[in-house]
Order: sequence, then C-alpha cells, then structure tokens
Amino acid sequence: MSHPPSAAALPEFAAVLDAAARIAPHARLTPILRDEALDALSGATLYFKAEHLQRGGAFKFRGACNAAWALPDELAARGVLTHSSGNHGAALALAAASRGIAAHVVVPDGAVRTKLALIEAAGAHVHRCAPTLAARETACVELMQTLGTTLIHPYENPQVIAGQGTVALELLHALPDLDALVVPIGGGGLAAGSALSLQALAPRCELVLAEPAGASDAAQSLRSGARVTAFTPHTICDGLRAGIGAPNFALLRAAGAGVITVDDAETRAAMRLLWQHLKQTVEPSSATVLAAVLQQRARFAGHRVGLILSGGNVDLDAIAFCARCGAG
Amino acid sequence: MSHPPSAAALPEFAAVLDAAARIAPHARLTPILRDEALDALSGATLYFKAEHLQRGGAFKFRGACNAAWALPDELAARGVLTHSSGNHGAALALAAASRGIAAHVVVPDGAVRTKLALIEAAGAHVHRCAPTLAARETACVELMQTLGTTLIHPYENPQVIAGQGTVALELLHALPDLDALVVPIGGGGLAAGSALSLQALAPRCELVLAEPAGASDAAQSLRSGARVTAFTPHTICDGLRAGIGAPNFALLRAAGAGVITVDDAETRAAMRLLWQHLKQTVEPSSATVLAAVLQQRARFAGHRVGLILSGGNVDLDAIAFCARCGAG
Repeated sequence: MSHPPSAAALPEFAAVLDAAARIAPHARLTPILRDEALDALSGATLYFKAEHLQRGGAFKFRGACNAAWALPDELAARGVLTHSSGNHGAALALAAASRGIAAHVVVPDGAVRTKLALIEAAGAHVHRCAPTLAARETACVELMQTLGTTLIHPYENPQVIAGQGTVALELLHALPDLDALVVPIGGGGLAAGSALSLQALAPRCELVLAEPAGASDAAQSLRSGARVTAFTPHTICDGLRAGIGAPNFALLRAAGAGVITVDDAETRAAMRLLWQHLKQTVEPSSATVLAAVLQQRARFAGHRVGLILSGGNVDLDAIAFCARCGAG
Repeated sequence: MSHPPSAAALPEFAAVLDAAARIAPHARLTPILRDEALDALSGATLYFKAEHLQRGGAFKFRGACNAAWALPDELAARGVLTHSSGNHGAALALAAASRGIAAHVVVPDGAVRTKLALIEAAGAHVHRCAPTLAARETACVELMQTLGTTLIHPYENPQVIAGQGTVALELLHALPDLDALVVPIGGGGLAAGSALSLQALAPRCELVLAEPAGASDAAQSLRSGARVTAFTPHTICDGLRAGIGAPNFALLRAAGAGVITVDDAETRAAMRLLWQHLKQTVEPSSATVLAAVLQQRARFAGHRVGLILSGGNVDLDAIAFCARCGAG
C-alpha cells in the first residue's frame, strides 16, 4: 500500500492552490474560533481553525475531495478505494458522492461502529475483511484488479497532501501574521500540507507538530533524520496512531518542523478545556494541539498561535453521556 | 424589580440598529453553522446561529453590553447592578468591564458554582444574600440607594431587548429569506428582540418560540392573551425558568409569535444530537430549538429554518464527564 519517497511524488504549493480551487464548490470554509479564557490560560492569543466542522466532521474531506476530483474521467468512472475505517474512509465516501462515482472502503471486522455508520451513510460500498494488514491488502488488491478502481492513500497520496494544505491556506489568508501554527501529526497528511502553505505564505511562522507520546514516531524520525516505521501505538488519539508517511517525512524534514509530544492525560485535560470554554466537541486527536501549547507556555507566551482542530468524530457513548452509569 | 407594561417602554427596530452599532466593537459576530445529518433528520434546511460562542458563552452579552454603553457618563460612573446569578450576571460583568465601570451582582447562596466563577472572573463585585426573592430585592435596593448604581433587568430593560435583537439582525443579514426563526423563550429578551428584527427585515418569516413544557407560561400567556405570572418552573433548562416579562409579552403578542413546548426528554435528545453532529457543546436551553423542529417535522419540512443556539455554559461535571462514576 505504501511507496518509497521520490522527489517526483512530492507535491508543491501550486498543488495546494489547485486543490483550493478544485474543492471550493464542495468543502466548507470553516470558521476560526476565539476564546478569552483559553488565551488567559495559555498566555498566548489562540486562533482555532475549526476543521471538526468540515463535512464528514474532519479535515480529511479536503484531501479526499481533491484526490477524487483530480482523477481523469475514465479512471474516476471506475471508482475510488481505501482501507481506512476512520475519518478518511468517510471522507472518501463523501468525496466520491460529490463527483457521482463509486467509493469502495475495505473495513476490518471490529471497526468503530460510529465511523462505520458515517461511511455507510455516505453511500460507500463496504467490503469487510479479517482484522489483519494482510487481509486488508489482499482485499484492496482484489478490488483494484477486478474493478480497476484507484487506491487513494489516506496521507501519502500527493493530491491528499495538497488538499489538506488548504486548511493552513485559509487560516493564513485570514491571519497572515501568525507566529506559530500547531498541527496534530499521525501519518502526516495535514502536517505536510500545512508545511507547503506555511513555507509559501508565512515563512517566518513556526510549524509545530503535536504528537501523542504513545505514537511518537514523527518526533523520533525528525530528530534522528531517519523515518521510524516499526512501533506499536498506544494512545487514546485514534486518529494519530498511523506512522509518518514517506513523502510526509520528506516534506516535514525539509520544512524544519518541530514536534511537541503530549501524553494522554494532557490531551484529556485539553479536550475538556475545549469543550468547556470553546464549546466544541472534538476528538482526542484534535485536543493535542492545545495540550502542546499548554505544556510549553513559555515558548508560546505573547505569540499569535494558530491551532488546527482536526476532527470531532468522538464516541459520545464513551465520553459525553456516561454509558457506564446511565448519567447524562 | 418589575414594572408594568407601557407603550413608552417598548423598544422599536431603530433601537436594535443603534444597539448593533454600539456593541460592534465589543461583541463577537458569531458564525452560522450547518450540518447535513441534522438537515436529513429534520427534513428542513437548518441554520444554527452560534450565540453560545458569544463572549461570556451566551447571547446575553449583547443586551448587557448595549445597556451598559447606553448609560450617560454620570450614571455609568456609578456602575450597573443585577441580581441574576446566571448568564446575565456574567454578561453584565463583562459588559461593565468593557466600559471600565463597576458591576454589582447580587448572588443568592446556593447559586451554580460555574456561573458564579464566570461572574467573579469578569471582575464583578459579588454581593451574597439569602436565597429568597425578598432578600435579593432588599440587597438590590440598598445598593441602588447607597451607590446610585443602575439596575439592568435581565430581559425587561428596553436596551437589553434591543441588544438581543442584534442576533436575528445578523442572521437575517446573512440569510434574508428564512421561512422560520426558532428562538428559546424564558423571560423573553431574546424572543422580543428577535421579533423586532423579524418584523422589520423579514415580515414573512415565521417567529416560533421554543419553551420547556415545565415552564410554559409564555405559551399559556400568548394563547389566553393575558400574561401568566404565577407558576413554578420544573425543567432542566436553567436558562428558561423565568416568567415572560411584561414588555416582552406585549412585543411577542403584537408579533403573533407561536410557541412549541418541548419536554425535557426531547431537549436532552436534541442536545445530544447537537453535540454529536454539530460538534457544539450547548446548554439545555439552547437545545429546545432543535427539539421543537424535530417534534413538528411536518410543519418545517422543506423550509429554511434559522435556530438560535442561545448559550453553552453547561456543567461538564454533570453531563460531559461523568462525576457520578468517574468515567470520562
């Protein structure tokens, strides 16, 4: 499913501008939210880009939409394919529907019920398989061979990276003089896309990646200069368990991005602050950005800081309304 | 604390326009949020005006800010006063701070801790009293007599009503052709202000009030034509327990507003839908508007409906993170 890094495969800023034009009829221009209480807590001026209010509940729609619409007609007619059972699966299903083409999503048994419901609601063809990497890859290869459908990788695909870059593009159009932009990192689609926009539009704005301590391969990779691929994630941030992709690593290394690792307790505390003060229901992956800023107050004090809230597809049964005791 | 209805005391639409200009440097232009899943559930096209993202976490800041800034300098110098321990207390404290004048808030013992914290954080002078109406009125009269401070009633004050009318004003500027606007009703400040903007800008847009079945005095008052003042509220919507005010009743009666009463179970279900799909943390009072639309699907089917999310100051210990069993 992966591919080796190659200079030819790395998208450039022009691709982000193309993506912005391509997805404009379909994606939402998300609001930028402010809260004085969080400013006071952090000592900085915080601007939250609300991508959890994007279609499908996450920034993922941007990249998937760009990839689906960038396909030539004859390829597009055969549909698109992914084996992501998370936000990318639902995003690709919505993106395919916006173009009127088929989406195939290979879903391992045991996938999260709420995310599966989003995928089905968007009208995708769901193909179940055993919960192993081998089974998923076999199912994908079979679909590609029999249907001629195009695999859209959730974060290594260059059109996906370019599409995710439109989040920072919008934020920098509204706020050209940010001192720092804090972005969650899992596979690195959003992070690498943000790097492209930052380097082109705000080269003095620092790019800071927020990563769970229990899946800190990006921090290790960028520190050592060699991409870490063998690790077992252990974090509540289900959107950030993927390892950093090859093109993503190359782009982020070139951009000189820094990483702040946050533990799950910090993420939980930040998620609660976002619910209480910003009034936003976000998933744990989104809260890492505020956790990172609060962990390193001195570093951000007095600065204008953009933070990308990446997604809001949280399981309310587990978190918001207590399923254990019936309260709520 | 109350006063009889009088034609002279009723604000007109010009006062809403004045309020908009007066509060513009201080209040937030709140976003309008959309969600396809909620559209599908309701069969209508829903536009949520996000006043829970207003400063202080509720629309209340608009009216309080207008009232605080409308005072002549010599009166303003003596400060403003209220006995609301809810969102109006915090809003008046913030409004007074924005003008650099004192705010006095009389708070009965036993007030909700989180709302009290907001009032104190905004720098108000808090005056505690026994939890009876007589004790609150005595405390207010003493402060008015000794300090010469001006009482700002939470919903009967004409400048407050005019300020709350700016919510619908903003919504109608963005969406001039709504078929209906659904607004929660407690004392009726937001509802009466909305009526002024609707009559002036969108006379064919229906004004629908959402009221808890456990505090349905507005429904009874508007149906009978006589204001009901004696009732004991019983609802989880802590922001909607007040009885409809005299000028509020007069304005809403003249506007021909209709009321939909919703029970607390409908409100809880709607609150959960807003958290899950719109990703917004709202308080129960806010959720009544969606509950009303979902209760009467046939009435709103195919229509463009504005809904005002009035506030987001919910106690997360009670609802989002379970204090009873420790989950979350």
